[in-house]
Amino acid sequence: MIEVIFLGTSASIPTRERGLPCIVLRRKGELLMFDCGEGAQRNFLQAKLGVNRPMRIFISHLHGDHVLGLPGLLSSMSLLGRRRAVFIYGPKGLRSLLNTTLSLIRSNINYEIHVMEVTSGIVCETEEYVVKAEWGVHSVPNLMYRIEERERPGKFHPERALELGVPRGPLWGQLQRGKEVTLEDGRIIRPEDVMDAPRPGLKVVYTGDTGPCEEIASLSEGADLLIHEATYSDNMRERALVEGHSTAKLAAVTAHEAHVRRLVLTHISARYSQNDWILEKEAREVFPATIMARDFLKLRIEYPAKL
Amino acid sequence: MIEVIFLGTSASIPTRERGLPCIVLRRKGELLMFDCGEGAQRNFLQAKLGVNRPMRIFISHLHGDHVLGLPGLLSSMSLLGRRRAVFIYGPKGLRSLLNTTLSLIRSNINYEIHVMEVTSGIVCETEEYVVKAEWGVHSVPNLMYRIEERERPGKFHPERALELGVPRGPLWGQLQRGKEVTLEDGRIIRPEDVMDAPRPGLKVVYTGDTGPCEEIASLSEGADLLIHEATYSDNMRERALVEGHSTAKLAAVTAHEAHVRRLVLTHISARYSQNDWILEKEAREVFPATIMARDFLKLRIEYPAKL
Repeated sequence: MIEVIFLGTSASIPTRERGLPCIVLRRKGELLMFDCGEGAQRNFLQAKLGVNRPMRIFISHLHGDHVLGLPGLLSSMSLLGRRRAVFIYGPKGLRSLLNTTLSLIRSNINYEIHVMEVTSGIVCETEEYVVKAEWGVHSVPNLMYRIEERERPGKFHPERALELGVPRGPLWGQLQRGKEVTLEDGRIIRPEDVMDAPRPGLKVVYTGDTGPCEEIASLSEGADLLIHEATYSDNMRERALVEGHSTAKLAAVTAHEAHVRRLVLTHISARYSQNDWILEKEAREVFPATIMARDFLKLRIEYPAKL
Repeated sequence: MIEVIFLGTSASIPTRERGLPCIVLRRKGELLMFDCGEGAQRNFLQAKLGVNRPMRIFISHLHGDHVLGLPGLLSSMSLLGRRRAVFIYGPKGLRSLLNTTLSLIRSNINYEIHVMEVTSGIVCETEEYVVKAEWGVHSVPNLMYRIEERERPGKFHPERALELGVPRGPLWGQLQRGKEVTLEDGRIIRPEDVMDAPRPGLKVVYTGDTGPCEEIASLSEGADLLIHEATYSDNMRERALVEGHSTAKLAAVTAHEAHVRRLVLTHISARYSQNDWILEKEAREVFPATIMARDFLKLRIEYPAKL
C-alpha cells in the first residue's frame, strides 16, 4: 500500500486554499516527496508525517514555486531533531541553489544531505522500488518521475509443497526466493509449482509541469496513479501549450491512452480558486476515474484485487 | 496614522497558527515590510495589501525564517502585475542571496529591485520619514529598525495672523513653512506667533531577533509602538540570552525603560502554541500596555491626543 498526501496543489502562486506544489508518498515508513514549494514545511509539519523518517525528495524543475520550500524544510527538520540523511534528486542547478541558500542563511543542518543532479533514466534504485525520470515539455527542463515497486513473489502454498514431498525447511526458503530445488529422489521442483505468479508492484507517476507529450504516456503505461498537472481548463489550451502546461482535458486524454487506474489533477491555477470543479468535470468526461487534488487530501493506493 | 499588519509571528518554525516573521506597516498607501519569512507571500496576498504599492522591505538578519520568503514574494508580485520598483534593505549577504536565488529559479521580474546592504545608522530617508537601524545582539548580525515620521508643523491659526496684521497671501505660506516674515511697518512676526508647536511624528521600532541591550532602549525612547521579539517565557531566560533572544518579561522591561506607548510581542516559539497567554501575562505584569501579536492582527497607531 502506498499513501499519497497532497501538501500543496496550486500553480505559481499560493491561494487561500492551495499551497505551492508538494506531494508526499508514504510507503512502509519511508517518505518520497515530489517537489517542495514555498510553505511546504508548514503543511508537512501539520500533516505530522514525521521529521526523522527515511526520506527522498524529487524535484521536477527549478521554478521557484516547486523548489523554494526546500531550504526551510531541511532547516526545520534539523531543528526538530532529524539525524537521518536526506537524498534529493533534481535537474542541474539544484545543488548550487541549495548550497548557496543554506550557506548564506547559515543553516546548521545536523544530518547528511545528498544532492543528485539527474537526467532522464533510472535515478534511484532500492531493493523495493525503482524511480525513473523522463523529460517533459516545459519552459525550463522538467523531470517527470515514476516510482515502480519491484515485482513481489506470488503467494507460497505450503500444502502444495508438502504434497510434492518438499520437506519443511531450507528448501521452502529457496523456492520462495525463486530458485528451483532438487529433492533427494532426483525430482526437480520449480517455484511456480508451489507459488502463485509474481504480483506486480504499484506504479505512481508525477509529471511536474509539462505540456502533453509522448513521454508521459509511455512513462505512465498501466500506472496505478497518475498525478498530472492541470494548470488550465481546456478553453485555455493554446496558452497552456505555449507555456508548457496542460489542461485538465489533455491530462485526461493521456490518462486514458496510458491505461492508468486513476488520475489526480494538481497544480491548479489560482484563477480557478472559486470554480475548480470545471477542471474536474472536463477531465471526467474523458476519463471518469479522475480526482481533483486539494491540500491535505490523502489517497490510499492498494494492490488491485486479484482476478 | 500608521497601520501595522502582522503576517507572520512565529519563531524558527511555522506552526498551524503562526507563519514565519513578516510585519507590514501601511502608511499613506506605502507598504513598509519588516522581514519576509517563508510563506509571507501567501499571507500578504490573503491580506489584500496590494501588489503594486510603493514598497520598502527591511530585513533584520539572514536567518532563513526571516528571509526565505523574499524570492517568492518578489516573483509572485511580478506575475500579478507589479511594475513599481521595490527597495530592500538588510545586512551584508542579502544581495548575493537574492541574486543567486532569483537567477537560479529563472525568475523574470518585471520591475526594478534595489538592494541596499546597510549597517547601523540612517538607512533610508524620505520627505516624510527617516528609518534608522541599530545592531542588536544575536547569533548573527541583526539590525533593529526604527521608522520615525518627520515632525509635522503645528496648526496654523488664521485669526491670529489677521489680528497681528499679516495680510492673507504669500506671507501666510512663509509662516506655515517655518519662516519669520517682516511686515510693511517693520514688525517681525515669527511662526510661533500664529502656529501651535510642531507635532511630533509617529515612531515605530522593530527588533528582529535580539537579546536585551542598551541599543533597543535608546532606539525606542518614546516610541509609539515597540514590536519586540519574545521567543521565550522568562523561565527560559538563560537559554534566551545564550541564543541572543529575549523573553517576554525582558521585552516588557525594555518597553518600560524606553517609555514607549505600546509593546507588541512577536516571534513566539512554537513551544507556546497552546499557551502563549503565559508570555502576555508575564509581560503585562511589568508593562500593562502589552499586546500579543497573532497572524493577521491589525493595529492602528494614531497620533496621541493633544494635551
